[in-house]
Amino acid sequence: MLRSCAARLRTLRVLRRQPGDARLPGSQPGSGRSFSFEDVTEKDQALPKPSWSKDLRLLFDKFMKKCEDGSWKRLPSYKTSYTTSTIQDIRAFFSGSIPLKEELMSQARLFTRSFEDGLGFEYVMFYNDDEKRVVCICQGGLYLQGPPGFLHGGALATLIDITLGTNAMVAGGPVMTANLDISFKRPVPLCSVVVINSQLDKVEGRKFFVSCNVRSVDEQTLHTEGTGLFIKLEPGKSLI
Amino acid sequence: MLRSCAARLRTLRVLRRQPGDARLPGSQPGSGRSFSFEDVTEKDQALPKPSWSKDLRLLFDKFMKKCEDGSWKRLPSYKTSYTTSTIQDIRAFFSGSIPLKEELMSQARLFTRSFEDGLGFEYVMFYNDDEKRVVCICQGGLYLQGPPGFLHGGALATLIDITLGTNAMVAGGPVMTANLDISFKRPVPLCSVVVINSQLDKVEGRKFFVSCNVRSVDEQTLHTEGTGLFIKLEPGKSLI
Repeated sequence: MLRSCAARLRTLRVLRRQPGDARLPGSQPGSGRSFSFEDVTEKDQALPKPSWSKDLRLLFDKFMKKCEDGSWKRLPSYKTSYTTSTIQDIRAFFSGSIPLKEELMSQARLFTRSFEDGLGFEYVMFYNDDEKRVVCICQGGLYLQGPPGFLHGGALATLIDITLGTNAMVAGGPVMTANLDISFKRPVPLCSVVVINSQLDKVEGRKFFVSCNVRSVDEQTLHTEGTGLFIKLEPGKSLI
Repeated sequence: MLRSCAARLRTLRVLRRQPGDARLPGSQPGSGRSFSFEDVTEKDQALPKPSWSKDLRLLFDKFMKKCEDGSWKRLPSYKTSYTTSTIQDIRAFFSGSIPLKEELMSQARLFTRSFEDGLGFEYVMFYNDDEKRVVCICQGGLYLQGPPGFLHGGALATLIDITLGTNAMVAGGPVMTANLDISFKRPVPLCSVVVINSQLDKVEGRKFFVSCNVRSVDEQTLHTEGTGLFIKLEPGKSLI
């Protein structure tokens, strides 16, 4: 499945607009050359909210500390009410084909940010360019239930997908998911916080191989392991 | 990840309460022996709604026709505001451990039914016991967006997870997902209808191997392929 490249394009833009960060760390020269640089005024969702648990706040603070020496960076995240120029950017990957009628586009929401605060996916990602790692700290809300009291497997697969995809993206620019392989070990309690640790294992041409594990906050419980294969998008080349 | 066994237990109950359908077709003798049979009054979500597209309605009618000779059966589906007895049933699989505080349990929602009508997951499943097949006809709404105009990969993974898991469940009773392996071929346009065709490939003891493909309504586009391994739950035996 094509990954959330619009959301990521926005992330790329914001990163690029930071002082001293004119190019996305780790990106290939020329990647994303069609991106524009308009102002981003939407609220960053990857910052503390009242709905965050104490565990999520503590982990956030811990990773923000790691950001102080520049080894780690926090990735901003938006609900993504797509701008005209973002859609134009995306069209470059789809040969002009966006299948949804324009009057509906404005009502569409990014899946992982489509819930009210605290009820769905709450997450923040951090990346370390030297280590080619992305860590996602996340809390699954009350509307993500599978069996009573536990996170739905599809919700966890979604969080793994975006974490692995983001890892591939920060290394090589916008990508699409070609394969996800997820092994579920122990269920995740609803409203608990888990840490998804991902690393870029290998790059072969346009193929990015990424793996991860999902652990409890105290690291004692291994909930899930996963691998992903992502294909780098090439602007102007048709995918569909 | 433990699959949505509470929702499925409710499905099992409803199926069992149908005249002439005292035992779930294909289930093993004794499976689900701890389930209770209280009245189910919640609205069945797997029936036509105003938010369904013409394609979804036509496919629904087509499969309902197939149900007339008894070879296929429609699976009801609920938003699942869990009853006390359902939770007691589930506790049998979790050694009494449901991690969510009781005051929050009533606010939790089944992930795949947690959106307003038409904005999230709209789906109906049908199964054929002789062929060991489950078909899910589904429409991904405006809040399930990945890249602009397309379904999020995590949303599709979720629909695959519930389809494969349901296939395993109708064959052997409540199960947990042990592995999902999904290959994404072509993105799914948002608000379009796709058909997930799954089949039970093999059973080895408590292991159920299921596979599927995801195609467009006209069957011309192969969007995705997936396999799943599911483990049968044994009441009274701890999983976590």
